[in-house]
Amino acid sequence: MNNQVKIGIIGIGNMGSVHAKNIYNNEVENMQLGAVCDIEPTKQAWVDENVKGIPFYQDYKEMIENENLDAILIAVPHYFHPEMAIYGFSKGLHVISEKPAGVYTKQVEAMNEAAKKSGKVFGIMYNQRTNPMYQKARELVKSGALGELKRCIWIITDWYRTQSYYDSGTWRATWAGEGGGVLINQCPHNLDLWQWIFGMPTRIRATCQMGKWHDIEVEDEVTAYAEYANGSIATFITTTGETPGTNRLEITGDKGKLVIEDGKMHLWQLKVPEREWCVTCEEGFKTPEKVYTEIKPEGVETGHNGILRNFVKAILQGEKLLAPGYEGINGLTISNAIHLSSFTNDWVELPIDKELYLEKLNELIKTSKTKDNVVARLQNLEGTY
Amino acid sequence: MNNQVKIGIIGIGNMGSVHAKNIYNNEVENMQLGAVCDIEPTKQAWVDENVKGIPFYQDYKEMIENENLDAILIAVPHYFHPEMAIYGFSKGLHVISEKPAGVYTKQVEAMNEAAKKSGKVFGIMYNQRTNPMYQKARELVKSGALGELKRCIWIITDWYRTQSYYDSGTWRATWAGEGGGVLINQCPHNLDLWQWIFGMPTRIRATCQMGKWHDIEVEDEVTAYAEYANGSIATFITTTGETPGTNRLEITGDKGKLVIEDGKMHLWQLKVPEREWCVTCEEGFKTPEKVYTEIKPEGVETGHNGILRNFVKAILQGEKLLAPGYEGINGLTISNAIHLSSFTNDWVELPIDKELYLEKLNELIKTSKTKDNVVARLQNLEGTY
Repeated sequence: MNNQVKIGIIGIGNMGSVHAKNIYNNEVENMQLGAVCDIEPTKQAWVDENVKGIPFYQDYKEMIENENLDAILIAVPHYFHPEMAIYGFSKGLHVISEKPAGVYTKQVEAMNEAAKKSGKVFGIMYNQRTNPMYQKARELVKSGALGELKRCIWIITDWYRTQSYYDSGTWRATWAGEGGGVLINQCPHNLDLWQWIFGMPTRIRATCQMGKWHDIEVEDEVTAYAEYANGSIATFITTTGETPGTNRLEITGDKGKLVIEDGKMHLWQLKVPEREWCVTCEEGFKTPEKVYTEIKPEGVETGHNGILRNFVKAILQGEKLLAPGYEGINGLTISNAIHLSSFTNDWVELPIDKELYLEKLNELIKTSKTKDNVVARLQNLEGTY
Repeated sequence: MNNQVKIGIIGIGNMGSVHAKNIYNNEVENMQLGAVCDIEPTKQAWVDENVKGIPFYQDYKEMIENENLDAILIAVPHYFHPEMAIYGFSKGLHVISEKPAGVYTKQVEAMNEAAKKSGKVFGIMYNQRTNPMYQKARELVKSGALGELKRCIWIITDWYRTQSYYDSGTWRATWAGEGGGVLINQCPHNLDLWQWIFGMPTRIRATCQMGKWHDIEVEDEVTAYAEYANGSIATFITTTGETPGTNRLEITGDKGKLVIEDGKMHLWQLKVPEREWCVTCEEGFKTPEKVYTEIKPEGVETGHNGILRNFVKAILQGEKLLAPGYEGINGLTISNAIHLSSFTNDWVELPIDKELYLEKLNELIKTSKTKDNVVARLQNLEGTY
């Protein structure tokens, strides 16, 4: 490996198949598709049609054993991300995982430790971090352009799914198969961006409604309220049961307000910071002068391939990762905290009690009314991916 | 009283003085300003300058005794609305009160009973009900145009106030003088419109932050989450500490979504109701076709005078009130429930435990660090208005 990263992809489902074709078609400079793997033997036909000539495995350990890979890309159901990553690191491979990092933080902490011990490059597919609007929002926040943060409101209710979506996989939207609903499947990007831009809260109180809009056992409706060390607060509202939905992110600070909605980015900046104005203005109702700008951030969203190119450069040239795998635990911690608050009907302090979360999750897995024989299938997965 | 309603105004403060001038200047057809009253003797000068020749009293009971009035308008601090209304009804007068109806529901229930017993016309100054946008929103909801309701989100953070505002009155923003902060002073219109359009919730959980942005003892920051009998949910976010603030009302139902923001009204209507689509569409990610309309409601906002004209017509011709005084208890119940949830750090079921609320309020009044001698002043008020 001098100027090429030879990668093996584990899981040729919705996402894995996209990544495999992109790499096979040379859309990721200096990345070479070494092999692909899926427990489904019928996927051989897909390989022959789409990535002809690439070795196909049903056992990911066998693939790693035989193919002299530099890296693996993990695109299997969420529960298996940590254990496969840990195995990859143990074999001296660089690893990039699909989101979420895992289902519960205890397993993700173990993954992070293994990554650290290995010293290998560890990425996560947070492709929405390549969106120039969210990058700009982060820059405005981190540079202090909005001043001390006060509030974040994200209404992200445009994750609409039909019942047919949930009926398309025996593992979908079950505690045993996915370990959650909209939080663990649709929202990992939003939860990551929220913490990436606004930071990690200190406590959360939330209500999740399970199977409110669909015949599923996990949550498809969530409202969460969060508090931060500096006193700022946030509200996060999501669902898969609403259409037309809304995707509106509002961030307010002492020096202004930022709103991202309908693909537009609006910025209001105060000429005098509000905290100063509040105690110096002698009129009761007057507000400080503000300047409005529609921000049109430069650059394009490079998406999945942008994340993979960055991963390659991190391996070959030591480039800094836009989405380090280590940060996957942040969004997952928020996700787990929201679940836990709903399970306990109470506030949850962060970092969460990871043992308690796992205990609650295991209780739900036990009662999980799986569709068909999903548990058996998962048990098979464990041994063969 | 055949074709004129002779009214006495109690309290010549910010609002009372506006109403007095409007009526004096014949802006309310068939309403005649009979007398005005304020405990401050210095207000005589205001009367001479603005409503010349109108009898001025410092004692509202004396005014009622002497002036052969048909009605009274109550525009004094919140705590006194119910007792003055009750006195007015006992003297056979029609009554219209400024908002809020009162500070705690127990006193407002007594007011409503007195009103009912008297059979007189009872109005409340919910002038925002005359806004054609909110009327249209209510019409769309009540007519079923949005279908079964799912969600309401009101971000109403544009109630900005400086510290100077709070320092302008000894009674302002104290538990003893006002009995609350942004909920009881700035938000009564929003809380009323919310329930007028979307209905009354069955339970609420909320966080109020006291004196977060100002040197005051009451709340200036609120996030509330509410649930309804039909399963729908709502989020209400308000503050007086943010600028530039937001005023964005979003209502979603099975058949569409409505957004009011920046003086515009946006409506999306689904060609197939979502609940039907969810179980019949065979594609997982597909949404039903929708039609967008910017709604431009007819009519103008008639405001305070519109409410007063309606009050006159209700008295003279039996016209239906747009804002019946009896409905003041609804917004106040939500306000009290939000406070109570924050005091108890728990869910609050509606209708609230009114005795518990009063108990908590009295505890706060006892510890109220009043500015100057606000308690003494209130005691004076009780006897003299």
